[in-house]
Amino acid sequence: MSRIIFEQFIDLETSTYTFLIADPKTREAVLVDSVRENVESYKKRIQQLGLKLKYLLETHVHADHITGNALLQDAFPEAQVALSEKANVKFPHISLKDGSALSVGEIDIKTFETPGHTSESLCYLVDGNRLLTGDTLFIGSCGRTDFQAGDSKLMYQSLKRLAALPGETLVYPGHDYNKRWVSSISEQLLSNPLLAMSEAEFVAELESWKLPPPRKIKESVPANLLNGHKPNEIAESK
Amino acid sequence: MSRIIFEQFIDLETSTYTFLIADPKTREAVLVDSVRENVESYKKRIQQLGLKLKYLLETHVHADHITGNALLQDAFPEAQVALSEKANVKFPHISLKDGSALSVGEIDIKTFETPGHTSESLCYLVDGNRLLTGDTLFIGSCGRTDFQAGDSKLMYQSLKRLAALPGETLVYPGHDYNKRWVSSISEQLLSNPLLAMSEAEFVAELESWKLPPPRKIKESVPANLLNGHKPNEIAESK
Repeated sequence: MSRIIFEQFIDLETSTYTFLIADPKTREAVLVDSVRENVESYKKRIQQLGLKLKYLLETHVHADHITGNALLQDAFPEAQVALSEKANVKFPHISLKDGSALSVGEIDIKTFETPGHTSESLCYLVDGNRLLTGDTLFIGSCGRTDFQAGDSKLMYQSLKRLAALPGETLVYPGHDYNKRWVSSISEQLLSNPLLAMSEAEFVAELESWKLPPPRKIKESVPANLLNGHKPNEIAESK
Repeated sequence: MSRIIFEQFIDLETSTYTFLIADPKTREAVLVDSVRENVESYKKRIQQLGLKLKYLLETHVHADHITGNALLQDAFPEAQVALSEKANVKFPHISLKDGSALSVGEIDIKTFETPGHTSESLCYLVDGNRLLTGDTLFIGSCGRTDFQAGDSKLMYQSLKRLAALPGETLVYPGHDYNKRWVSSISEQLLSNPLLAMSEAEFVAELESWKLPPPRKIKESVPANLLNGHKPNEIAESK
């Protein structure tokens, strides 16, 4: 019998991972980085497991997909959104900063401020041993830093900090484009080339990437600043 | 604060993983698949963490390295060796079969009989969500079946059974030769080619491997049948 319910959903279109974490005893649950298109599948699973959705956590304001949080709060009105105090959002939410702690039943969740991909990026350490790394640390890579106040030097510092966690800490990224679901700090120290670079090498490497903008950035960011409402939905409801 | 102490050691010479698992409250601990050459590092870590070593678990009688169990019992006389009832060994041990349960504090360990690599191969499900797969399921592969009563058809069935566990179950193999430390069932279902094969394809694939014998097989198997004593040590002590 597991002492944690920990489920990982994949959004195949954007290779985004969403995490449903709950205490099997109290049934309190948190959903991390939901994707709007998949809200029905989360709802079904939460109901199937008989969970009480307490928090809707975001690692950052995403540019590649719209959060499902607004729709999820329609179904689970008690669920509170939580994200970085640095996020420039007006909707009701719990503001998190470095060291902020949340809990679902006996499972604690500790916040790490990890700017770099965006200025308000957070990572979450769940139950002391599972690190949700958002778009900060990827398996074998890291998040891009070329928009939304991204900053390669801050990313370098954030990665250093994560890399100093115990080797057995499990790494669950917010995306993976190579069919990887989980890694560990030990594994990343051995195999992630970015973690072996000097700051100057790292900054040059990230500058060399020259990636196209995320396909959905123009609709995602404005909607995510509205908790996952599309701007026209807000206009219609007024 | 983590509710489990879970540490993964690597033996670089044989790419063997050893696991130290303990309950942080009761300090009871189990060590899985120790390697004789690394006994001092385990002892140091167990003492550093103030653990009470309760069990020395083996996934099978290894052909590539000698277990550290005899030496560890010299240091921790209360620690009991546990392995499959199918292992042909005479030293004192706890006999495990399918479904056998052990516990260290609040952490339970469930035994799966998974013949294939050897006839007495076991996997262990720790805390309901971490599967120690020994030489049965490897990350992207599986253990060889060409010695020690190995059997590809039994391996196929054993892998099927592991693959049916929940997707989030973490996979910790007994070896990895590609710098991988951890995976999950979901990830293996997507990326391990062996799990997508028919039985006939699988058996043909494993037959095609034609691997050289493990370098240390002639010293490892006899010593492991003596709990990690080299036969000359037994002769000397008589």
